[in-house]
Amino acid sequence: MATDPAAAAAAALTLPSPTAAFLAPYLPAAAAAAARKDRPFVTLTYAASLDSHLSVAAGTQTALSGGGSKALTHYLRAQHAAILVGASTAAADDPGLNSRLDGADAGSQPRPIILDPRFRWRFSRDARVLRAARARLGKAPWIFVARGCLEDRADERVRWVEEAGGRVVPLDDCDGWWSWTYLLSAMRSLGVESVMIEGGATVINDLLRLENRALLDSVVVTVAPVYLGSGGVNVSPQHEQGREGEAVVRFKDVQWQVLGRDVVMAARPETCE
Amino acid sequence: MATDPAAAAAAALTLPSPTAAFLAPYLPAAAAAAARKDRPFVTLTYAASLDSHLSVAAGTQTALSGGGSKALTHYLRAQHAAILVGASTAAADDPGLNSRLDGADAGSQPRPIILDPRFRWRFSRDARVLRAARARLGKAPWIFVARGCLEDRADERVRWVEEAGGRVVPLDDCDGWWSWTYLLSAMRSLGVESVMIEGGATVINDLLRLENRALLDSVVVTVAPVYLGSGGVNVSPQHEQGREGEAVVRFKDVQWQVLGRDVVMAARPETCE
Ligand SMILES: NC(=O)c1ccc[n+]([C@@H]2O[C@H](COP(=O)([O-])OP(=O)(O)OC[C@H]3O[C@@H](n4cnc5c(N)ncnc54)[C@H](OP(=O)(O)O)[C@@H]3O)[C@@H](O)[C@H]2O)c1
Ligand SMILES: NC(=O)c1ccc[n+]([C@@H]2O[C@H](COP(=O)([O-])OP(=O)(O)OC[C@H]3O[C@@H](n4cnc5c(N)ncnc54)[C@H](OP(=O)(O)O)[C@@H]3O)[C@@H](O)[C@H]2O)c1
Repeated sequence: MATDPAAAAAAALTLPSPTAAFLAPYLPAAAAAAARKDRPFVTLTYAASLDSHLSVAAGTQTALSGGGSKALTHYLRAQHAAILVGASTAAADDPGLNSRLDGADAGSQPRPIILDPRFRWRFSRDARVLRAARARLGKAPWIFVARGCLEDRADERVRWVEEAGGRVVPLDDCDGWWSWTYLLSAMRSLGVESVMIEGGATVINDLLRLENRALLDSVVVTVAPVYLGSGGVNVSPQHEQGREGEAVVRFKDVQWQVLGRDVVMAARPETCE
Repeated sequence: MATDPAAAAAAALTLPSPTAAFLAPYLPAAAAAAARKDRPFVTLTYAASLDSHLSVAAGTQTALSGGGSKALTHYLRAQHAAILVGASTAAADDPGLNSRLDGADAGSQPRPIILDPRFRWRFSRDARVLRAARARLGKAPWIFVARGCLEDRADERVRWVEEAGGRVVPLDDCDGWWSWTYLLSAMRSLGVESVMIEGGATVINDLLRLENRALLDSVVVTVAPVYLGSGGVNVSPQHEQGREGEAVVRFKDVQWQVLGRDVVMAARPETCE
């Protein structure tokens, strides 16, 4: 549903202070993030059901978490320089990708980044992320597209993004897939010092693989008390070949907090074997 | 691993009193359970990873939860008249199926029930559940077998079970599957007033289906901060045909409690649509 940005701003969210204190150790510290030149501080975050599904079916959005967890998401957004989603999430959810936290001003809005190598998200000028940017309720998006798929610089979508203040950023061709080392270094060279990665399942499962998890600084997962059922969009990383009998990711510095009907885990991945 | 029952008893567990208070509203109340004549009070309980897996692969046991959650399981066992697992869990884990809670006496031990329609669990006289029973550290098991699969009453396994004080209970033939209404009424007519159903995934997923979830009084799920990865033994109930776009189970009376590195949800399924 196309929500009016003004109405959205009116429904501003506040985070209870114990939850802010709970999250503090897992947030990017400005100085440390600025000092790291090869990649941004990375927070992976999402909300899932007890059976680890993001939505009941591909291409649909499922309202999962309660008001408290929604405030948490918007609080986290305001704490990061950028937020990132995959092309399928953009296409399925038409997300606003701004922070509706009470008091979030233009300066604390994160930069939306969409991974869309084939530039296949067919949005209109009325996409929520563009409307939010035009209304100064969020930053305009950067859409990462493979150079070879960006033949027509006059594509009206390029125009709409630029008119809102955003960019369609050509990245290396990649046979359809960029490595996270490459993506994160591209973001860093664009000045991004921290990024909150929100989904969907393809992006999350890829980042949780053995190869990538050392790139994750913090992981914040909300669990909602519901079973969405098999066949939905499922978070569960694949095993590395030859390591099928082992857990894929273990965590250290694990903290949980109850937030309404949901529970939130904040933690850091173990990286040494 | 075959653990010595005496050593097992020595490693007795205690549950912190806030956790006992947290669980109290979800436990079977003796009078109410006794008054219900068609089926026992049913608690479904298990521990899973963030990605809702019980183990990394079928036929293997994965140590998932920390000491606190283990104490919780053994506390819950002592609060129920019986505990139930499927044949694959018995075969994979060689479980003791007793309560190692500090102070659990012979009287508070639950009756182990194993659903093994084809009597395919090839245990020895040394199975942990039999050793525990002989050492009076647990009750002897009842193994539910389809009548047609129990041709040989002189099977040495029948003898071992009976010698420990248990029974191989012949139930109706079932084309390999009993309905939960039938199973629970069979248990009730054997005098079982409350049962804790522990797994594995086949049993849990079946019980969480629309058709069965009204049979569940309480659900207690422990979530451990780890990803076991796709391909493991997964809890995620199937959708009913024609209801693919909806959550399969929602809960009411949801409470969470942090227990060491894990978190525990106690709740009751919503049953009205
Ligand atoms: N509950 C939550 O917290 C939450 C959050 C976000 C999304 N969601 C849900 O998740 C679902 C969408 O998830 P999804 O798994 O289908 O898709 P997704 O992860 O949103 O998008 C996947 C697509 O993004 C592109 N992409 C991702 N990583 C890439 C890389 N490293 N290099 C190049 N391209 C890359 C690819 O596009 P191409 O296919 O064009 O190659 C890929 O197929 C939706 O139903 C949405 O509602 C839920
Ligand atoms: N983390 C935990 O809390 C936990 C708890 C328990 C188990 N586990 C793990 O779970 C795994 C085993 O789970 P699983 O899904 O493979 O199997 P399972 O649920 O333990 O056993 C399934 C089998 O039990 C019999 N059965 C179950 N329901 C039945 C019914 N209604 N009517 C007739 N027979 C019925 C059937 O035997 P037949 O195949 O002979 O028909 C069925 O295939 C193991 O790896 C174990 O370690 C973990």
